[in-house]
Amino acid sequence: MNFRTDLVIEQQEAKAGDLPEGVTSEEATVGPAKITRIKVLNQQGAEALGKKPGSYITIELPPFTDSYDEIDERYVAISNEIKSLLPKEGLVLVAGLGNNSITPDALGPKAAQKVLATRHIMGEIARSAGLENLRSVCVLAPGVLGQTGIETGEILASIVEKVKPAAVIVVDALASRRLSRLGCTVQISDTGIHPGSGVGNKRAEISRETLGVPVIAVGVPTVVDAATLATDLATDAGGDEKKVDELRKSVEPRGATMMVTPREIDLLIDRAAALIALSINKALHPTMTPEDLLALAS
Amino acid sequence: MNFRTDLVIEQQEAKAGDLPEGVTSEEATVGPAKITRIKVLNQQGAEALGKKPGSYITIELPPFTDSYDEIDERYVAISNEIKSLLPKEGLVLVAGLGNNSITPDALGPKAAQKVLATRHIMGEIARSAGLENLRSVCVLAPGVLGQTGIETGEILASIVEKVKPAAVIVVDALASRRLSRLGCTVQISDTGIHPGSGVGNKRAEISRETLGVPVIAVGVPTVVDAATLATDLATDAGGDEKKVDELRKSVEPRGATMMVTPREIDLLIDRAAALIALSINKALHPTMTPEDLLALAS
Amino acid sequence: MNFRTDLVIEQQEAKAGDLPEGVTSEEATVGPAKITRIKVLNQQGAEALGKKPGSYITIELPPFTDSYDEIDERYVAISNEIKSLLPKEGLVLVAGLGNNSITPDALGPKAAQKVLATRHIMGEIARSAGLENLRSVCVLAPGVLGQTGIETGEILASIVEKVKPAAVIVVDALASRRLSRLGCTVQISDTGIHPGSGVGNKRAEISRETLGVPVIAVGVPTVVDAATLATDLATDAGGDEKKVDELRKSVEPRGATMMVTPREIDLLIDRAAALIALSINKALHPTMTPEDLLALAS
Amino acid sequence: MNFRTDLVIEQQEAKAGDLPEGVTSEEATVGPAKITRIKVLNQQGAEALGKKPGSYITIELPPFTDSYDEIDERYVAISNEIKSLLPKEGLVLVAGLGNNSITPDALGPKAAQKVLATRHIMGEIARSAGLENLRSVCVLAPGVLGQTGIETGEILASIVEKVKPAAVIVVDALASRRLSRLGCTVQISDTGIHPGSGVGNKRAEISRETLGVPVIAVGVPTVVDAATLATDLATDAGGDEKKVDELRKSVEPRGATMMVTPREIDLLIDRAAALIALSINKALHPTMTPEDLLALAS
Repeated sequence: MNFRTDLVIEQQEAKAGDLPEGVTSEEATVGPAKITRIKVLNQQGAEALGKKPGSYITIELPPFTDSYDEIDERYVAISNEIKSLLPKEGLVLVAGLGNNSITPDALGPKAAQKVLATRHIMGEIARSAGLENLRSVCVLAPGVLGQTGIETGEILASIVEKVKPAAVIVVDALASRRLSRLGCTVQISDTGIHPGSGVGNKRAEISRETLGVPVIAVGVPTVVDAATLATDLATDAGGDEKKVDELRKSVEPRGATMMVTPREIDLLIDRAAALIALSINKALHPTMTPEDLLALAS
Repeated sequence: MNFRTDLVIEQQEAKAGDLPEGVTSEEATVGPAKITRIKVLNQQGAEALGKKPGSYITIELPPFTDSYDEIDERYVAISNEIKSLLPKEGLVLVAGLGNNSITPDALGPKAAQKVLATRHIMGEIARSAGLENLRSVCVLAPGVLGQTGIETGEILASIVEKVKPAAVIVVDALASRRLSRLGCTVQISDTGIHPGSGVGNKRAEISRETLGVPVIAVGVPTVVDAATLATDLATDAGGDEKKVDELRKSVEPRGATMMVTPREIDLLIDRAAALIALSINKALHPTMTPEDLLALAS
Repeated sequence: MNFRTDLVIEQQEAKAGDLPEGVTSEEATVGPAKITRIKVLNQQGAEALGKKPGSYITIELPPFTDSYDEIDERYVAISNEIKSLLPKEGLVLVAGLGNNSITPDALGPKAAQKVLATRHIMGEIARSAGLENLRSVCVLAPGVLGQTGIETGEILASIVEKVKPAAVIVVDALASRRLSRLGCTVQISDTGIHPGSGVGNKRAEISRETLGVPVIAVGVPTVVDAATLATDLATDAGGDEKKVDELRKSVEPRGATMMVTPREIDLLIDRAAALIALSINKALHPTMTPEDLLALAS
Repeated sequence: MNFRTDLVIEQQEAKAGDLPEGVTSEEATVGPAKITRIKVLNQQGAEALGKKPGSYITIELPPFTDSYDEIDERYVAISNEIKSLLPKEGLVLVAGLGNNSITPDALGPKAAQKVLATRHIMGEIARSAGLENLRSVCVLAPGVLGQTGIETGEILASIVEKVKPAAVIVVDALASRRLSRLGCTVQISDTGIHPGSGVGNKRAEISRETLGVPVIAVGVPTVVDAATLATDLATDAGGDEKKVDELRKSVEPRGATMMVTPREIDLLIDRAAALIALSINKALHPTMTPEDLLALAS
C-alpha cells in the first residue's frame, strides 16, 4: 500500500468492503457515537489489514469543534470501550505520547495534563478526602525521542518496572488517510503502538510484548500526511504510476514533511484532549460524576 | 484562475514566465537573500496579475527553521526593502494581523509582540535613556473579525485617525500556491492588504485608499490551501475539469477549510515572527544595532 | 493612606467600619455569593474613600481555584450585578485590559478571548442561525501602553467613536490590600478605571467622562503589592514610621515591583477569566443558557 | 531557623558573616559574574548551615531581565562551574524539575526544552552530520508528584537504571529569602536536591545516595515565600515572637501558599531557562560555539 494511515477502519475500507479472512467486524450506536469493533483474529487477518491481531474499536462522533457542552454525551461511548479493554483492578499508568511543541502532535501531552493522578493519594489520605473509590493511577508525558534522546518505549518500560501497573493506556495523535475523519474519530485498541504510527511517525513498538502488561492505545487522527493525500488525489485524477510518484514527491519540498490539518487545529486539539482525558478518567473511576472528575482534574 | 495565492511571484509564474504588459521585474541578491522586485505599473498589468498597481518585493531565503544564529544575516535584505517603501520620517503604526489562537495565522500578532513601541517614550524620556535616535512607533494586534466583531480595517482606521501616523506597516500570514515557498519567503508591498488575502481569508481592504496614509504590507506564506493543492495535483495528474472540481471539493469535508503546513509550523511561526520583527525594528531605527534592538524589544 | 488597593471595600474597612458621610452600603446573598453594594453619593463620600461618586459592588465567592463545576452557580450573582448597571439595549463594547505576557495582569485579555463578539453576525445571518436574540457586542484586547505606545484610553476612545456603543465594559486585574481577597472577589462599578488602578498600575482614566458613554468596570484582585504588604506587616508588628518606610523600600530591590500572588496564580487567572467571561456573556444575552454561551464562545 | 531558603549563601549570611567550623568559602569574578564557592566539609559544617557536605557555588549576575544580548557573556561562569563538577566523560542525564503550569516553578521544564538531546544521534549519524564531538546527553521533564502520582526521584531512578548515565544534572526553581536575589542568582551544587527545596517544596531527595551517580543541581531562585518575607519583616520591625508568628500566618489565608515574585516573572523565567540551557549545553559540548548550540537546540 502506498498510503499512510493509523486507522484500521481505513485499512479495511481499502479492501473495498470485503471482510478479509481472519477479521470480524460489528457495529453499534451509543448516543451520538457510531462504533465499529474490528477484531483481527489471526495472522491471516493481520497480513490482510497490516495490523497485529487484537481488538480495534473506531468511534465516529460529531466534530469535536462543533460545540462544547455536548462533550458530556460524547465521552460515554469512548469511556465504555476503554473500560471494556481494561483489567478490572490494579494501578493504571496513563502516558500521553507526542511532542507538546508541535500542535497536531500535542494531543497526548495535553490529554495527560487533564488525567487525574491518584497513586500518591491512595489509602488514608484518599479516605479522609472522600475519595476512597478512586482507582490508583499514575500519569506521564514522556516527550519524544528528539527531545529526550531516549525511545518513548524505553522510558515507559523503566517506569512500568518501577511502579508495576496492571495496564498501560497510551494516548497519541494519529495520521488518517481521509480528511473527513479528522476531529471526529477515536480509535481504541488493545495492541498498543507500532513502529511508524503516530503523527511523529517515529515511535518504536509499545505493547504487551515490550512492556509485559496490557497496553490500550487511544488515538485521535489529527492530520493527513500530504504525501498520502497527493497520492490519493493523483491516482483518483487518473495519473499513471510514474506521475503519481512524481506528484507525491512534489509535496515534500527539500524532504520536509507536510501535513494537512483543519484550520481550527489548535481548538481541535484542545477539545479532543479534554474529551479523551474525561473519557479515561471516567473509565478509571466509574463511580465519579463527570462534574467531580472535571473538578478534581482541573 | 482556480487557485489561491497571496504571492505576486506565483501569479507571475502562472503566466508561464512571460512578463505581461504593464509589469516590470528585476532581481537582486543580498547575502543569502534572492530578491525579486515586481512593479505593476498600470491597470493592464493589474488585470494580468490580479493585483493592484504598486511594488511587490519577494525575498527568498534559507528556511527559517534551519538554524537560529543566521537570522542576523537574513534580516538585512528584508529590513532594507521595508525601509525603501517607508517615508523618511514621522510616526509609524505597525499592526500584526491575524488570529493568535490559530497557529499558522498567528504570525502577525507574534511579530507585533516583538516590535518596539516608542511613541510613549519620545522626547525628554528618550533623551535621558540615550534613545533620542528612536523613531516614534506604535504597535497594535487588533485581532480578527470573529474575535472582535469589528473589521480589522475599521479598527486601524480609528487608530490612524487618532494617532495620525505617516505610514502603516501591516504584518500578515499569507497563503501560497507552492509548498516549497512556506517558511522561506517574505513578500513586501506598498499596496496594503486586499479582500481574500491572508490565512484567515476574511480581511477587508487595508490600504492607502482606506487609511489615507501609505500602507506597507509584510507577509510570510505559512500555508497552502488544501483546495488549491488538490486542484493543482489533480490537474497535473491529468484529471478533466469535472474530476478536478470533484477532487477539489473532497478536501473540504463538511465545508471545513483544510490547510497544508510543514510539520514544524509552530517553530516556523516563532522564527518568522522574530525575523520580521527584527527587520521592522531595524528599518525603523537604522542607527540601532540588532543586539540593542533585541535587548529593547525582548 | 500609604497602602495600595483598587477595592472600595478595603478603603471602607480602613475607616474601621464607620460609614463616612456621603456613602451608603447594603449587603445581600445570592447562592454562594456575598454581595456588598457601596454607593459613593457625593464629593464628601468620594474624598472619604478616595473613589469617585458611583456604585461599587463587591462580590465575595468561594475560591475560583477550588473546583470547576460550581462556576455555573457563581456566575449568577456577577451576571446580575453587571446587568443592573448596563443600559437595556444597544451595542456593548467589551475591553479586556492588561498585559497578556504577565500572568497576574492577563485576566482582561484572557476574559476578552471568551466573550462572544456578535456585532458582525447580527441581522439576517443571526436570524438564520437561530441567534436573533443576541445583543450586538464587540470585543477588544487593546494591550498596554508599553506594548502599543498608545494609552489604552486613547485606543478605546477611537473605537468608541467609530462603533458608537451604548456602553463599555472593561475587565481588569486589580491589586488588593489583603491576600485573603485574591482569587475569590469580584468588584463591579459604574465609574470606570482610574489612574493608578490595575495590576499594571499605569492606566489613564477610562470612564463616562473620557469615553462619553457609561463604563462598567469588572475587576478581580489577583495580586497584593509587596510594598503594601510590607507596610502593613511592619506597622502591625509595631515598627515606627521610619522603620516601616525602610522595610517598605527593602521589598523593591533595584526599584523592581514585587508582587504577592497565590502559588496557583496561573490556574486562578484561567478560572477567573472563564467566570468573568461567562458572567458578561450571560448579562448581555440573558435568554441564552450557560451551555449555549459556552458552546458559542469556545 | 524560622525562614525558608534553598540558598546556602543565605544560610551563611544568617550566621552574621562568621564562617562556621567545617565550612570554607572563596570568591572569584568572571566577567559580569561574582562567584562564591562554599564547601561544607563535614558533619559539623553541615549542621551549622543545614546543608549536606559538598560544594555549593553561588553565581551573582546582572538581572536576567535587563537585556538579552549579554546572555552570551553571562553563560561563561555558569558553564565553567557546571563543568568543574561533571565527570570528564560518559552519558549525562539532564532533568528539568518542576511544574510547567505554575509560572515560577516552570524553570526546570523550560530549560529542559532547550537542552540538546544527543544520545539517539551518536555514532555514525553524528559523524556524518559533523557532530562527532558531541557528548551523549538525554533529557527529561518528569513533571511533579501531583501531576504524575510518582515521586520525581522514583522516575529519575528508573531512567538512571535504564540508561546508566555517568552523572545527572537537575535544574530547579528555588526559593530564596531575599527579594534582591530573584532573577540574578544561580546556585550550583554537587549534593543534589533535598526534601523541602524547590518552589514546589515537595521533592524527595535526589542525590548520589538515591541515584548511585553524581547529581549536580543547578537552581535559580524565582520566589520568596510570603511567610518567610512576613517573618523577616515583622522581626525587623521589632515584633515579639507571638506577633511575628501571627503575622506569618496572616499571609497564608485558608492555608494557601503565597509567593512573592517580580512583576516580570514570566520574562524572568524565559530568560533564566534560556541562560541555564545554554550554560549546560556549553558545559556538555565545550568545543561547540554558543551560536551552533543555539542553532541545534532551537
